[in-house]
Amino acid sequence: MRNIEHIGIAVKNLEEANKTYKAILGSEHYKTEEVETEGVSTSFFKIGESKIELLAATKEDSPIAKFIEKRGEGIHHIAFNVEDIKAEIERLKAEGFTLLNETPKPGADNKIVAFMHPKNGHGVLVELCQDKGPTTKEVYEDGMR
Amino acid sequence: MRNIEHIGIAVKNLEEANKTYKAILGSEHYKTEEVETEGVSTSFFKIGESKIELLAATKEDSPIAKFIEKRGEGIHHIAFNVEDIKAEIERLKAEGFTLLNETPKPGADNKIVAFMHPKNGHGVLVELCQDKGPTTKEVYEDGMR
Repeated sequence: MRNIEHIGIAVKNLEEANKTYKAILGSEHYKTEEVETEGVSTSFFKIGESKIELLAATKEDSPIAKFIEKRGEGIHHIAFNVEDIKAEIERLKAEGFTLLNETPKPGADNKIVAFMHPKNGHGVLVELCQDKGPTTKEVYEDGMR
Repeated sequence: MRNIEHIGIAVKNLEEANKTYKAILGSEHYKTEEVETEGVSTSFFKIGESKIELLAATKEDSPIAKFIEKRGEGIHHIAFNVEDIKAEIERLKAEGFTLLNETPKPGADNKIVAFMHPKNGHGVLVELCQDKGPTTKEVYEDGMR
């Protein structure tokens, strides 16, 4: 794990939350992106070497909608930058952790990602993120085989 | 706000959580510190320019014990590094935010800190952190007056 890539925060209304986090962080979000497969609309703020990712549900049955229904708005996950997501998945499996994605999947902001089960992280949903690139694209398309 | 200083994670058992996060992050915690006024024992891991702070209650009525009782283990707060905590508190108040501490208080890991009400941050408990130093020590001892 190299550093904190981002902290994901589940919010009800992306536009309102963008205003709030602009006021907290003192800077504008630099992009908005919809991840249709996940049923979320996201926006990103830079803060040092990391990002804040706001997540709002676009469908009633999306994971973020369910999270907010159960726990209210708040921090949803921590994402760590990794250099080699395939190697990290194998390392964590060998350590006894349960991965929700054993094969990386496309994430927001030009990443391939995999999630670890929150029961493994004392209630914390951990995401692994690797930048997409010529090498990693190949890994992703091959489904890591 | 300069960067993410740390992410605070509420755990039931610090020793077990230290083992888990060593396995996740691939490195040992670098310190353990008890903050008696808060009724917590903490341990810290470095990850890039940020830290992971594990928090375990040392008293039944501590905020961390209450948090775990209500929500289970999980992410408790995000802390941001600030250069001038007094100026940040004033800036946030002017933006309409409610501070839980209008005067900075001593925090773990050689910091002075102030918390913002989670209702202001879409359910996120935000902590401001400033390094203690010759100048900031004076600010703190003067209670910012």
